[in-house]
This record gives sequence, structure tokens and C-alpha cells, in this order.
Amino acid sequence: MSEVVKAVVLLSGGLDSSTALAWAVRDQGWQCHTVAFDYGQRHRIELEASFNVSRAMGIRDHRVIKVDLRTIGHSALTSDLPVPKDEAGHSGIPTTYVPARNLIFLSLAAGLAETVAATRLVIGANVVDYSGYPDCRPEFLNSFVQTALLGTKAGSEGRDLQISAPLIKLNKSGIISLGLKLGLDYALTRSCYDPLPDGSACGHCDSCFYRRRGFEDIGECDPLSYPDD
Amino acid sequence: MSEVVKAVVLLSGGLDSSTALAWAVRDQGWQCHTVAFDYGQRHRIELEASFNVSRAMGIRDHRVIKVDLRTIGHSALTSDLPVPKDEAGHSGIPTTYVPARNLIFLSLAAGLAETVAATRLVIGANVVDYSGYPDCRPEFLNSFVQTALLGTKAGSEGRDLQISAPLIKLNKSGIISLGLKLGLDYALTRSCYDPLPDGSACGHCDSCFYRRRGFEDIGECDPLSYPDD
Repeated sequence: MSEVVKAVVLLSGGLDSSTALAWAVRDQGWQCHTVAFDYGQRHRIELEASFNVSRAMGIRDHRVIKVDLRTIGHSALTSDLPVPKDEAGHSGIPTTYVPARNLIFLSLAAGLAETVAATRLVIGANVVDYSGYPDCRPEFLNSFVQTALLGTKAGSEGRDLQISAPLIKLNKSGIISLGLKLGLDYALTRSCYDPLPDGSACGHCDSCFYRRRGFEDIGECDPLSYPDD
Repeated sequence: MSEVVKAVVLLSGGLDSSTALAWAVRDQGWQCHTVAFDYGQRHRIELEASFNVSRAMGIRDHRVIKVDLRTIGHSALTSDLPVPKDEAGHSGIPTTYVPARNLIFLSLAAGLAETVAATRLVIGANVVDYSGYPDCRPEFLNSFVQTALLGTKAGSEGRDLQISAPLIKLNKSGIISLGLKLGLDYALTRSCYDPLPDGSACGHCDSCFYRRRGFEDIGECDPLSYPDD
């Protein structure tokens, strides 16, 4: 009998992280602990999505860690800066970038991994659509794991820790295809950076743009509705 | 005229981090932003100490970042585990170790450094008294900076980031000597892991033990009082 592999999965409840979770649970067969972050984001509906996706995937340990990134400031996702609309594909690092966000989230996930004796961290980072975010690059992710091994009890006692970014080379349509194959219900996920008051997606932020185009590109229907549908 | 060097200093309000701040401000002449962490610690009196030390050092930007490490659990500092007494010098990693704490704190500090355009992170880590904490070792600190450079906008745009751990090779008495030389008022600092209900130090946890011995070793008087004085 092979040993159970335990993983901590960063789960925002968005399309990417939900697909990464489906991969870890259904493709790899890992015993997953999911972690969402209540970081002062304007679109708190993602915390609900994260809970719903976790439940649908049969996760028994879902945690929400509070970390107030508004104290750091400087992002359209945590401050009064406007969320850019209809600008997807522009060059440079978008204003929705939160300083050191994945570094912070991965650090918290590494702490949790130590507590639950997990040897895998799973993150839905991908380089294709979000090349503007430096903290989604493979060289960062690999460097992070080396640092975490040096800075934790688990690592200093010889426990293994690996990072999996199963979507790293997939574009949005590739990610959606993978999730659909694994039976992920995308109606449970939320992607919008700037939802309407009723919680529905705006349809025009970068995140909505890439999601909608991803479904279109493979001729599938996005189960979410948009104002201009 | 030389350019102003900006630093983010991790300041718990304890003896070590306060001395590191005094060094950054008074020895190096850096413009410092201090950051304390409200992480669910039982001894919240350190947040007051951190504020008081910052003020005494003339810091104009002191921030408290909330991050709930109790969700991660497994430390005597954030859970119901008892704080060990009269056990200083025991081998192994103490139960006061918080999983990945410095990794998490440094990540948040790196985010703040990016926002305020600081090129230095300052941490009061030292390897002599706290060799039990893996996240105080120089190899961890150096690895962290490399990771942070890879995972932040600042780093990817070529901004410098260095980490300073001015106490790394000092023992407790060496740290106190340095702080006294720089005019740091140790009455403002707090070190105890398990303060009494009136806020005074217990005198018997590891942290009290090393602090008291540090003052004794150089024939100086600790301005704090202890129950058994």
C-alpha cells in the first residue's frame, strides 16, 4: 500500500486555483488541505466560492487565514485604486498586482504544511495569461521552496516539501479543459476582480476577460452569467 | 549628498528587534519604517512595546499587520500549549517555535518594502541563544532575499533588496551592550513569552532567562522588574 501524500492547496475559489485543486484531488489522489486568504480583498465573494469548491471536492480541512494586506496597500484589489477594465493584454505589471502576495500566501501555506505534515504545496499559478505577475514564475516558485525548507522545522528535520504548479504552462482554455475533464463544476468558481453589488461578474476586468475568452476558445459555455450576455 | 537609504524593520518590541532598530536608525542612519505583527500571540503587550520603541526612535511610519497564525496553530505562543519554564538551554526546537513565522513576517515586510520603496529589510535574528529556531539562520535569511527579489515587482524591475541581521553573531549580552551604546532604553522593551496578568515579566520562560542572564553577564541592571527580584 502506498503512503498517503498530503498537500496544502492555495484556493482562492477562482478558476485557476479550483482547477489546481481538482488536479491534486482527482488526478494525483492527494489528501488535500485547502487554504483561502481573507486579505482585505474587495471581492470577498471569492471566500464563499473557495468554501463551495472545497466542499464539492470532498475536502475535510478548509481554513481561512486572515492577513490584512491593506496595511501594505498599493493594489487595486485591496485599496481604492480603480480596477482596470477592458485592458487585458496590456504590457507591464497590472495595478491588480498585490505586493508580494504569492510570497506571503505561500509562506502561510508552508506554515500550515508544517502543522499538518504535508509534503506538497499546490498553487494555480500560470505564466501564460498572467505573465505580468512576477510571483507566478517557475523560478520564483522553486526558489520559494528552497527558502521554506531552510526556514522551517520540517525542512531542518529533513521532511520533504515540493511545490506543484500544474497549470504553469497552460493557457486559460487549457486550464478549463483540464478542469472539465476532472469534473470540476465551474459554476462554483468566481473570477471577477470587481463584482457587481449582487455578486455577479462585471465581465470587463482582466480576470473576466481571460475567463470568457478561455471558454469561448474551446467552444464551451461559461456557467456564470455576465451583464452583457 | 548621499541618497537616503530606506529600511523596513521587523519590530516585535522585544530586546533583539529593538536593538536592531536602534542599530539601523542610529548606527546606519537609515530612514526606517517599522512593522509589528498582530498574529494572535498570547502576549499582546509586545504590540504596545513595539509602538513605544518606535516612537522613542523617532519613527514616523509604524504599522501593525494583522495575520492570524492561530489558524495554523501548533505553538505555545499562539495556542493553549503551555509556555515552557526554566528550560532554557534544552536542545531541539522549542515549543514556542511558530511554524514558518519569520518566513511569513519577512514576506509581509518584503511587501511593505516594495510599497515604501525600501531597499533594506532589518531583522533581529541571532543564532547564538536561539539556535533552535531554523528561521533565524543566515542561510535562510539569504535565501529569503533571493526569493523575494524573484517574486516581487521591485525585484523584477531591478530594485535592490538586502537583508541585515546586525545581531546575527551576537549573544544576549553583546546585543544589550550594543543597544546601551546606541542609547536604547530597554525599559520600553518587552521580552517575556508569558507575562503575568499585570503585564510584568514571568522571569522564568526562555526569553526572560536569556534576557536576565544577558544583563547580569555585563554587570548591567535590567530596567524591568521580575516577581523574584
